[in-house]
Amino acid sequence: MPIQIYNTLTGKKEPLETVEPGRVKMYSCGPTVYDYFHVGNARAFVVPDVIKRYLRDRGYQVLHVQNVTDIDDKIIQRAQSLGVSVDEVVDRYTRAYLEDLLRLGCEMPTVLPRARDHVGPMIDLIRVLFDNGLAYAAGGDVYFSVERFPRYGQLSRQEVSQLEAGARVEASAHKRHPADFVLWKAAKPGEPWWESPWGRGRPGWHLECSAMSMAYLGERFDIHTGGADLIFPHHENEIAQSEGAVGHPVVTYWVHNGYINVDGEKMSKSLGNFWLFRDVADRWGAPVVRALLLSKHYRTPIDFTEEALEAQARGLERLYRTVGDLARRLHPDAPQLSSEAAAAGPAEQALERVLQEKEAAFHEAMEDDFNTAMALARLFELAREVNRYLTEAEPAPQPGPQPTLHRAYRLLIRLGGILGLRLDEPLHSRADDGELLVPLVDLILEVRQQVRSERRFDLADQIRDRLKALGIQVEDTREGARWILSDASR
Amino acid sequence: MPIQIYNTLTGKKEPLETVEPGRVKMYSCGPTVYDYFHVGNARAFVVPDVIKRYLRDRGYQVLHVQNVTDIDDKIIQRAQSLGVSVDEVVDRYTRAYLEDLLRLGCEMPTVLPRARDHVGPMIDLIRVLFDNGLAYAAGGDVYFSVERFPRYGQLSRQEVSQLEAGARVEASAHKRHPADFVLWKAAKPGEPWWESPWGRGRPGWHLECSAMSMAYLGERFDIHTGGADLIFPHHENEIAQSEGAVGHPVVTYWVHNGYINVDGEKMSKSLGNFWLFRDVADRWGAPVVRALLLSKHYRTPIDFTEEALEAQARGLERLYRTVGDLARRLHPDAPQLSSEAAAAGPAEQALERVLQEKEAAFHEAMEDDFNTAMALARLFELAREVNRYLTEAEPAPQPGPQPTLHRAYRLLIRLGGILGLRLDEPLHSRADDGELLVPLVDLILEVRQQVRSERRFDLADQIRDRLKALGIQVEDTREGARWILSDASR
Repeated sequence: MPIQIYNTLTGKKEPLETVEPGRVKMYSCGPTVYDYFHVGNARAFVVPDVIKRYLRDRGYQVLHVQNVTDIDDKIIQRAQSLGVSVDEVVDRYTRAYLEDLLRLGCEMPTVLPRARDHVGPMIDLIRVLFDNGLAYAAGGDVYFSVERFPRYGQLSRQEVSQLEAGARVEASAHKRHPADFVLWKAAKPGEPWWESPWGRGRPGWHLECSAMSMAYLGERFDIHTGGADLIFPHHENEIAQSEGAVGHPVVTYWVHNGYINVDGEKMSKSLGNFWLFRDVADRWGAPVVRALLLSKHYRTPIDFTEEALEAQARGLERLYRTVGDLARRLHPDAPQLSSEAAAAGPAEQALERVLQEKEAAFHEAMEDDFNTAMALARLFELAREVNRYLTEAEPAPQPGPQPTLHRAYRLLIRLGGILGLRLDEPLHSRADDGELLVPLVDLILEVRQQVRSERRFDLADQIRDRLKALGIQVEDTREGARWILSDASR
Repeated sequence: MPIQIYNTLTGKKEPLETVEPGRVKMYSCGPTVYDYFHVGNARAFVVPDVIKRYLRDRGYQVLHVQNVTDIDDKIIQRAQSLGVSVDEVVDRYTRAYLEDLLRLGCEMPTVLPRARDHVGPMIDLIRVLFDNGLAYAAGGDVYFSVERFPRYGQLSRQEVSQLEAGARVEASAHKRHPADFVLWKAAKPGEPWWESPWGRGRPGWHLECSAMSMAYLGERFDIHTGGADLIFPHHENEIAQSEGAVGHPVVTYWVHNGYINVDGEKMSKSLGNFWLFRDVADRWGAPVVRALLLSKHYRTPIDFTEEALEAQARGLERLYRTVGDLARRLHPDAPQLSSEAAAAGPAEQALERVLQEKEAAFHEAMEDDFNTAMALARLFELAREVNRYLTEAEPAPQPGPQPTLHRAYRLLIRLGGILGLRLDEPLHSRADDGELLVPLVDLILEVRQQVRSERRFDLADQIRDRLKALGIQVEDTREGARWILSDASR
């Protein structure tokens, strides 16, 4: 079956046909690096990651570009509020983004372009837009003239004539039309700037995605992803810039993911109803967050609740436990079914059929516009059947190969891998282990308090000295013991 | 002063002149993802990272491509020895590489191209080499004919006529000349393969760097880095392929870093005298490894010893402590020097001069072929002077701005940042905190053993239950208590 993709531009599902046979070129809108990303942002990273993994499993070579917006008003404001330089904000949160992206189980994109390193190509693009009569300078800024681009509004299905300055359209005295948007902003005092033919300033946000997508993927590429909140104005403006420059459509499929909702409202920084991914991952483990983000079709909203996380945690625990049980059963030292029993028994034949059915159903789900909700359900079902087999089938004492179980193991690992779940590794990662530090030290100090209250001061002192050797300084106060992790002493 | 770079191709230092004004395009040979990387590999990642950071500080926009070799004999062998699929080896070690790269304090490269996603452009490149009369097919493989490329040997300063099959030149019955190298290998059973005009097979290792560097940086770019062991044959062959295809030099500056030595021998996987970066980082902290790798000029060998690590650890502890002391002194709640005293005192004036001198000396070192040894020494000296000031200057009780101290803080952070040391963050990171898990649990169990020996079974049981609630299963055996981290129960 060909893969079907829902295209926001046409409003329907279409079969995947790539510009270059066997290769998929995909661009995803990445983060603005002014804070840690929240669970809503995380969905926009997980969706293209799963698309990429599935396409690769289907034999495509995939080039994936995901930008880093490191020029932005929010970054400048954040630097001011933290009392540090803009560069420090960018360094800190770019790094945090990459750490969190890995922790979320995402592959690194092939290209991670930072806006700051691509100001040259952005200026070149503005030049072309001037040549094509689509840009004008006013009040030190440069604007895109939406009235000069006939297809403006095609993605968000709006008429230019209906667009007035409002919620998502910024008013300005210099604009010829309220929906015109800035390509180049004149520098204000204390802000980062670059030289340009229009004076010192910085590129508009929309411009970077046009310049950086075409710089790495060319003038025609296959898939563009982003959150549904980016359809207008960001992606509408990106289309205007890119098509306005090259004179033809650049992106074939526009893919937009739905929101993460909290009490019925979109999780967002500006509403204040957000949970940082790293905090949720600390508490629940990163794979639980990932599973939650895949638990619905990518265009469907997801309600972010304790219950939903709890359900995913329970599901994953069963899934990982089954894979672990299976690995132990297949271990060379374990008692094995005899070759004949393993191959010929009715239980094995039934399991073999289950493997084939679940694999086919998994692919059917993913082919249908990457329906991870259905695919994840098939994976859970597969694990349940394997678990039932393991519980019911008695291993014979003599060693021998168990081909069906080996196939079951490989299939679980492979399908899990397509969803970015690494079922052969512990559910809780090394990064999560750091989280045990606080409860462990607290526990030791409670025990110490106990032995102190029994006047066992020698043991209490010994515990304090041992902790100190590990770089943990304990201070006894009237309210009890306090501790800090002393970096210098380690 | 212009930046001077030592160019292996010309054998001398040359001033940096970029192809495109204000932008530097750099390619670095990345890892083959078949194992965790060792400290010797780590140097080849840290060197371009520091070059990139310094060039950006100097105002350049930097594009950095660092490839991931995920098609290779070593990967296939590793998959066989681990009993897992080639894809699993690639996934596991690509991810580990990226985690370790971040932990090493490296920025992500702009582009992280995987060989598997670029087989198409590699095949295209072979076609061009055929057209140019430089490639021939033999025995199912395709080879590059070194005798047809007149400049072969220019980088490693060898004559083609002197090159015979030997240590670094593989013999083959199909080759016309012993130094000819493979561009396309016919598939062997059980190996990954791709379709090509020459049958099913896979690209040669040298080919990927030619194809992927030009795909992202164009036919002329500025800097190519790699370990000195790559000069021949890898980079010699890359030049032959790239120049052979486009007809002119592609890379301006060839930059090669020296080895990490263990007892006088190059640290390498094949010699078995290697330490994995993650293991050394677990024990010493990642910044200590990074400082060691920067403690000599990049072309100078470094002896990997306990004493060298110990020296860097001591140096960094002083450096981070000084920055921490300075931050506390500058904290709004701390007693501050009065504005006049801070600006006008002779101690402040002396410190101001030190800042200027050390900053200039730091730049002088980095401009001279990125001499990180000298630059790091200047940073340590700067911290020492700041520390002396802090120790000797008495803070006046009244609050007020301390402009010199603020400048000192900013300068330390910025120069540290150029070397990839984040002086405003703890020396030991979250990743290192996970390492406290084992000693902390061991300590708790020792205490438990102690109270048990005193027949305090209630307290011992309580400790066991509390650990269990944290996912740590304790089992009492005749040899003492054993514990495991149980993932399923968390």
